Amino acid sequence: MFSGAQISLYPMADDFVGVILGALGALDPYRDRLRIETDDISTLLVGPPEVLFPAMRDLFVAAARNGRHCVLSAAVSRGCPGEPDDPICRSDEIAGPAIPLDERKVAAIRAVQATPSTGQPATAQFSLYVMGAGDHMDEIYGCIDFLKQSGVFERSKHFCTKLRGDAGAIFATLAEAFCRFGPGAGHVTLDITISANSPTAV
Amino acid sequence: MFSGAQISLYPMADDFVGVILGALGALDPYRDRLRIETDDISTLLVGPPEVLFPAMRDLFVAAARNGRHCVLSAAVSRGCPGEPDDPICRSDEIAGPAIPLDERKVAAIRAVQATPSTGQPATAQFSLYVMGAGDHMDEIYGCIDFLKQSGVFERSKHFCTKLRGDAGAIFATLAEAFCRFGPGAGHVTLDITISANSPTAV
Repeated sequence: MFSGAQISLYPMADDFVGVILGALGALDPYRDRLRIETDDISTLLVGPPEVLFPAMRDLFVAAARNGRHCVLSAAVSRGCPGEPDDPICRSDEIAGPAIPLDERKVAAIRAVQATPSTGQPATAQFSLYVMGAGDHMDEIYGCIDFLKQSGVFERSKHFCTKLRGDAGAIFATLAEAFCRFGPGAGHVTLDITISANSPTAV
Repeated sequence: MFSGAQISLYPMADDFVGVILGALGALDPYRDRLRIETDDISTLLVGPPEVLFPAMRDLFVAAARNGRHCVLSAAVSRGCPGEPDDPICRSDEIAGPAIPLDERKVAAIRAVQATPSTGQPATAQFSLYVMGAGDHMDEIYGCIDFLKQSGVFERSKHFCTKLRGDAGAIFATLAEAFCRFGPGAGHVTLDITISANSPTAV
């Protein structure tokens, strides 16, 4: 199944180019398991969720470490019928509804609890989109139940859910939402915004 | 039908707060037709597409005018089954498949051609998500056909389509994609990134 993300890093700083270039080394441990292409809008990462989410986390934490207000925005996708398959995307992490929704919720909560801290506080919001399935709202409501027990749930907003906590737990929560909800072979996407060092964060 | 957007403005500048505050006046002509709520991650705009897209355009153009690299990111949604209806969202612009796909393409192209220029060049990329319909890819391919004839099509990318041109034509193209494709009463979302003054734009 083809999976990947279009990601953008926005450092709110005159030296945004320096902040971005300084953070890119965080992707080095993942480069042999990702296909990476950059243009003036975003960077494409093609690879399985178990590589994508840690790579995005480490890039974000590296960029946020200097204390500047910094946002990572990502469109993450799996199973889009318009995309060709790619061997680099092979994954054991996508559970799908072969397993009952309640069991997936419990497994997702345990996975987030087992995630090490990065020491970087963050806030995030995201939307989960499940395409082409008549019961897409059941999967979304199941995911929201998981989020409320994830330890990083802040509140529901129109169109999205807001999270707050350590960046490690937040990215683990996003990965669980992406892999465990929606049809296993289906077209699932996340629209993610994650922010650090905002002067207006309360 | 409930419709609106979560939007964020990212000026890549030490004075990002000043750039954002300086641009907010661009929303004034729209405030009586939108419900607006802001937190540390995004600003919610609730209202019909014919108000939402011009409001986002004017905010973006105002922020980009000072020449700083600036990005507007938006999650736009209509018809989400989990959202209550709101009278402020009443719209005559959502066509849906009651009208044949070919006629919708032609109408969308004409609407973009009739849009005045803002004088602000921009690049953008976006994904159109159509939920809960078995034929969601037909609507997406129909929309892609329209985009290729919109005058601002740059290229297809994994997971999204890239646009380039005047900000006026780009926001008109996004509005047409949002209103004319996907079921009229259905759950349709856009994930939008629009950028000005990037040093890496070619």
